[in-house]
Amino acid sequence: MSKHETIAKKRARTIKDLKSFGEQIYSQIDDRQFPSLVLQSRSIDNIVYDPKTRQYVLGNRKINRNARNIRHLRPFAQLVWTAWFSKELLRMRKTSTLREVYYSARGQRDIEFKDQDESDNIITDLETMLTAPREDFHLFSEERSAIFGDLTVEYTVPGYEGNRLNLTSHPDGVMIGPAVTSSELIETSADIVLVIEKGAMFTRLVEEKAHQKFNALLIHTAGQAPRSARSLLYRLNKEMGLPIYIFTDGDPWGVHIAMVIISGSANAAHLRDLTTPDAKWIGLWASDIIKYRLPTENLTDLDVKRIKELQRDPRYEDEFWQNELKTFLNTKKKAEQEAFSRYGLTYITDKYLPDKLTTT
Amino acid sequence: MSKHETIAKKRARTIKDLKSFGEQIYSQIDDRQFPSLVLQSRSIDNIVYDPKTRQYVLGNRKINRNARNIRHLRPFAQLVWTAWFSKELLRMRKTSTLREVYYSARGQRDIEFKDQDESDNIITDLETMLTAPREDFHLFSEERSAIFGDLTVEYTVPGYEGNRLNLTSHPDGVMIGPAVTSSELIETSADIVLVIEKGAMFTRLVEEKAHQKFNALLIHTAGQAPRSARSLLYRLNKEMGLPIYIFTDGDPWGVHIAMVIISGSANAAHLRDLTTPDAKWIGLWASDIIKYRLPTENLTDLDVKRIKELQRDPRYEDEFWQNELKTFLNTKKKAEQEAFSRYGLTYITDKYLPDKLTTT
Repeated sequence: MSKHETIAKKRARTIKDLKSFGEQIYSQIDDRQFPSLVLQSRSIDNIVYDPKTRQYVLGNRKINRNARNIRHLRPFAQLVWTAWFSKELLRMRKTSTLREVYYSARGQRDIEFKDQDESDNIITDLETMLTAPREDFHLFSEERSAIFGDLTVEYTVPGYEGNRLNLTSHPDGVMIGPAVTSSELIETSADIVLVIEKGAMFTRLVEEKAHQKFNALLIHTAGQAPRSARSLLYRLNKEMGLPIYIFTDGDPWGVHIAMVIISGSANAAHLRDLTTPDAKWIGLWASDIIKYRLPTENLTDLDVKRIKELQRDPRYEDEFWQNELKTFLNTKKKAEQEAFSRYGLTYITDKYLPDKLTTT
Repeated sequence: MSKHETIAKKRARTIKDLKSFGEQIYSQIDDRQFPSLVLQSRSIDNIVYDPKTRQYVLGNRKINRNARNIRHLRPFAQLVWTAWFSKELLRMRKTSTLREVYYSARGQRDIEFKDQDESDNIITDLETMLTAPREDFHLFSEERSAIFGDLTVEYTVPGYEGNRLNLTSHPDGVMIGPAVTSSELIETSADIVLVIEKGAMFTRLVEEKAHQKFNALLIHTAGQAPRSARSLLYRLNKEMGLPIYIFTDGDPWGVHIAMVIISGSANAAHLRDLTTPDAKWIGLWASDIIKYRLPTENLTDLDVKRIKELQRDPRYEDEFWQNELKTFLNTKKKAEQEAFSRYGLTYITDKYLPDKLTTT
């Protein structure tokens, strides 16, 4: 368990970073210079896979954005406005979304984005500049993941400061939104975190009391884990020392849900603290489909194409992953988490998960 | 506020109905008859729109399913097995999903579904037979909607019986899964329910304290409201006497999210207690887009096609709906809930919603 920065300190640091960006521009103008800034380049040839940290990182190439250059003037002004907007969010203790940023700009006379892609891209510039995910400056994704289990959190959102909630209190699970994401993690009796791809399996595991049987926190990602869920997993691993186990469908999309939690994605190469390299994928492995004689479906052409892409992906270079990908191609089969129901509704908690959690 | 059946009574009634189905078959066999049953037909020509209840209902045509008929034997056996499976769920106080039912059958020697469509269809037969939604016999959809606000519920799920939770306790909202759906609604200080299409707007409204400003419960449907959310809305309206207001994107898909809450869908024509005919759609109306000068996008070909379908749909025959559909076609524009951000993040709670809630 590592010493961690509190949420309050992190917020103060982000505000300070945004302010110094503004001060830098003022001081450049005072010095009669055109305002400018230096950013790490995010172009594809500057994104490299780092086997040591087991994630994508940015290389050393920098770009210089200077208001003297007429082509730089527009993104420069957009970045300054976005930084101001973010600072206002932090000051007012509000949160917002990528889409609201785009529409908010459309209410301004002095700023313009031609579409949301352009504003999203400027927000990524701001992340790169601050080396902080946009959640740190209060820009969130739509809520869709959920958590259940014996974890007590202390909220920092306005109106709830200091309130604590134990996340077993609602048996359908609570949403992972701005409030959970910005809460201090106070206490847990759990030994592990079990991440589940689908809502139906999440409900099954709550019902079968998997949280008690395996002393686990249960997290439902609803497909690819949103960044708020990935950042919470990072913190549960780092701050509370909990190992993370990921349980997905047995198909290339399930595999990659696990991989993005473990090693992140290329388009977050400019960010830290979103990946959990020690997290383990516990299934459904391609080899489990055979071993447990599960009902299967045939791989589609799209599945096969995706598996071949993953085989060439540096995050999958390890032998274990390569073997599983090969097994998918050899058997030409995939299976869903729910396929275990063929052995009864409790097989998953009586047999499969105990097997997996002791051997993985 | 109407007198309502408690959850415990409803469960007892469903078990009783399932048992009498079994007893009926045994007594037919004892009488040396082939087992048979009579169901309302769900074929398209027997689904009629009833302007009085403002929803689709089944007509008078019946089908007779008789085990003597070799073509009936398979669906008859499937229905009996599904009824047994449901009774077991109720007895064990467990829940399941459409997909788990399909896979559970694959573990049986004596029952067979060729695909999930076939098992889904038999589950709908069982709903028709019991005139009860499958949630009553514990078959749920994947959780994705959420609720926030001053509502105290009392759980009836195992391990939580008698526990009460006030749904303001978690500011990101709690999931609407089997536990909320099967809870008794104990107490609320709310005057209305505000239904919101998108998670981002839900988060915005929690943050702007819309629940306090409008004395409202907030429900996030995440697109088309799942049946668990529609059944909860029905109960909030009937049991607690709360008016329901629905706030969606201003496009044909948003309109229809509202309409399905209000008047249901043709494929639930065999069911009651899922629609709330007095619920009101408060926007984004096509006319709001003009009135509030919102940033817009152009209607796509698919949007236009959908609007033309809705114009011919009996649920939309009322003048108000027809005018709004016509306005979409005339302006050729649509707008999203977030478009109000052009006037600042609080415009929606300071101006738009107060306007709408007082005039609708």
